Amino acid sequence: MADSTAADLRIDGARLWASLMEMAKVGATERGGCNRQALTDTDRQGRALFRSWCEAAGLGVSFDAIGNLFARRRGRQSDAAPVLIGSHLDTQPTGGRFDGVFGVLAGLEVARALNQSSLETKRPIVIADWTNEEGARFAPAMMGSGVFAGIHDLEFVYSRIDKDGVSVKEALEAIGWLGVLAPGAFRPHAAFEAHIEQGPILEAAGETIGVVTGIQGCVWLDLTLTGVPAHAGTTPMEARRDPWRAATPVIEAAFAAAAAAGPEARCTIGDVGIAPGSRNTIPETLKVSFDLRHPDAATLGRMRAELESAASRETAARGLGWRVEEVFHMAPTPFDPGLVATVETAAAKLGYPYRRMISGAGHDSLHLAKIAPTAMVFTPCLAGLSHNEAEDARPDDLAAGANVLLHAALAAANA
Amino acid sequence: MADSTAADLRIDGARLWASLMEMAKVGATERGGCNRQALTDTDRQGRALFRSWCEAAGLGVSFDAIGNLFARRRGRQSDAAPVLIGSHLDTQPTGGRFDGVFGVLAGLEVARALNQSSLETKRPIVIADWTNEEGARFAPAMMGSGVFAGIHDLEFVYSRIDKDGVSVKEALEAIGWLGVLAPGAFRPHAAFEAHIEQGPILEAAGETIGVVTGIQGCVWLDLTLTGVPAHAGTTPMEARRDPWRAATPVIEAAFAAAAAAGPEARCTIGDVGIAPGSRNTIPETLKVSFDLRHPDAATLGRMRAELESAASRETAARGLGWRVEEVFHMAPTPFDPGLVATVETAAAKLGYPYRRMISGAGHDSLHLAKIAPTAMVFTPCLAGLSHNEAEDARPDDLAAGANVLLHAALAAANA
Repeated sequence: MADSTAADLRIDGARLWASLMEMAKVGATERGGCNRQALTDTDRQGRALFRSWCEAAGLGVSFDAIGNLFARRRGRQSDAAPVLIGSHLDTQPTGGRFDGVFGVLAGLEVARALNQSSLETKRPIVIADWTNEEGARFAPAMMGSGVFAGIHDLEFVYSRIDKDGVSVKEALEAIGWLGVLAPGAFRPHAAFEAHIEQGPILEAAGETIGVVTGIQGCVWLDLTLTGVPAHAGTTPMEARRDPWRAATPVIEAAFAAAAAAGPEARCTIGDVGIAPGSRNTIPETLKVSFDLRHPDAATLGRMRAELESAASRETAARGLGWRVEEVFHMAPTPFDPGLVATVETAAAKLGYPYRRMISGAGHDSLHLAKIAPTAMVFTPCLAGLSHNEAEDARPDDLAAGANVLLHAALAAANA
Repeated sequence: MADSTAADLRIDGARLWASLMEMAKVGATERGGCNRQALTDTDRQGRALFRSWCEAAGLGVSFDAIGNLFARRRGRQSDAAPVLIGSHLDTQPTGGRFDGVFGVLAGLEVARALNQSSLETKRPIVIADWTNEEGARFAPAMMGSGVFAGIHDLEFVYSRIDKDGVSVKEALEAIGWLGVLAPGAFRPHAAFEAHIEQGPILEAAGETIGVVTGIQGCVWLDLTLTGVPAHAGTTPMEARRDPWRAATPVIEAAFAAAAAAGPEARCTIGDVGIAPGSRNTIPETLKVSFDLRHPDAATLGRMRAELESAASRETAARGLGWRVEEVFHMAPTPFDPGLVATVETAAAKLGYPYRRMISGAGHDSLHLAKIAPTAMVFTPCLAGLSHNEAEDARPDDLAAGANVLLHAALAAANA
């Protein structure tokens, strides 16, 4: 087949949309979202539907010991490392119709488009549905891709239990997706993932494609400030050791550090605890959660250092105590520059308005990037809403994202 | 009896201390405090012990329909309005040995001292144990004195229930203290209350007596700040509507308003709520409780106005919403200047280091002041601790407080 034909190839946007809407019926919620949590019966139904589509498209479906599903389209060189296109079909308990699902069904649509044009590639193309990306019923999140990439030990992951005491292994067996193949038994030549942005940047800029250059680093800290509890009425202000007096300048300092770290920095205080929590008692402790993110590890470290320095300074000045506990840390993950360029070239050739951008959230690609050249394609979503039943996206934007995926994967599969 | 004898009269500090320690056995907790909640069986035991002491001292004990206990010592003019000395025997669930109890037993010790010197007074002296000052099992607090002063309706108070659905009337009947006398059937000529300070001021200043000039005003506000919840990783800082960005300047403004309102002002944030309360989600709402106090109503109003003005200004600047809910309001209650002077004169003549001061907490005297000239005597307590099993006081300080009570009451009872 001539190159000109390949260059003109487009996915069928209407068919992609119809697949998304069909999959959205599995675990559909009253408010228009989806509850298709990993390793539940709705997950089983979703996987069965997807498998039937893959088999109808002539793809060979297999799955590994953690239930990762692989749908393989043949290449001319059957032993060449395949190009992988993957994301996840599982959702949050009150999730949307696109988060993850779009990336899997866009991969299927790539295969269907190649089939329709009878286009062969040098390398096989494998569409993956990674088990339990969301981590809602079973922690950790990004479980299947983590086992595949060797980040998590299989037996450790098997032993994780839900709130009813059911283990991952039991749940996998119950839905019929406990495979025999060792996860990670093949290494992809390249790994792609298309995903809705889950943020407002593309929509606000009127752009269609985000060429994702990496996943920002993230650190979760719990800052505990300790004072002396006392009676609200009888204790003079100057005799108090009130954690709030340090909390406000420390919070301001954390936001200031994020502002100084540029437009890619994030600082979020999603939770706060107070003890004893009585309206007329000066608190003994305030526990403030910080979610700090930045694509550059050194800058992220500086944001954290400025927070800790402010905590030390502001508590010392007021006779208060403090400590910081690191709850979670994820180093920044830059994607493969060559594969990022492949995505950018595809977006440019297709004529879509695009920008290079960082992913603010974690994805399966975070783990894939440890073992293979990896890149992601973002598409706009309504008002940046995600993990929300009101999550929405425009069919044309999704089709555009799938077309970028198609041409980037095509380039990689013939390289 | 000559005035010189009366002037030399002192209460027996060792006997006062022994009574306090004996009463502390009723409902004693393992950690050295007391759990003698109103209208429980320990309250019944405490009342029975106190009644036996009163009867042994020749006082006539009666009680009214809300269970307020009155132990009357005769005066030369049996129909003259009596001088009332009262506080409460009930405690918090993890209360101390002195809060309230000291004021009641100091009153008994006044009567005993007068008995020992065979000293007659013109007016009768009535020692009161007010029902349910603490409000731990049944709300509202200061219940008995509130009914006595006509602040609360008797039937309303009867109908209040504890967490098991037992009503105040049922509980009163169960412990045998549901009286037939209408509360408030007599008007005191003057009302005194001795109480531990429950704050650190006297101890820190090395002073023995607080001449209480009134009870400060108090307002409880719930400030709710409303933003837009969004993903911590994917939402740029400039696209956020984060309630924290208004919370910190508003909290600072509230503390600044208290600082500007002078040393008697208080500002406490004892509780905070956050929703949805997820570590990696920008909060939709922050609910911050404010306890503002000041002895001057206009100044208290200004503190509140500055808080609300800051909330309006700081939210408007950031596209956030806000509302303030008034949960509780207690106007400042100045005590009777003449009776305050009587207390001050007694403290000065006895040679105790003293200061005029405001009560930071509410007391039964808050209600008494609505119907009679009222004054209070404060004594130091260890580190300002109260509502705490570790609450403590020095025997000499308590004896000094009881002596001031004795001489102030004596002056009023002969006026």
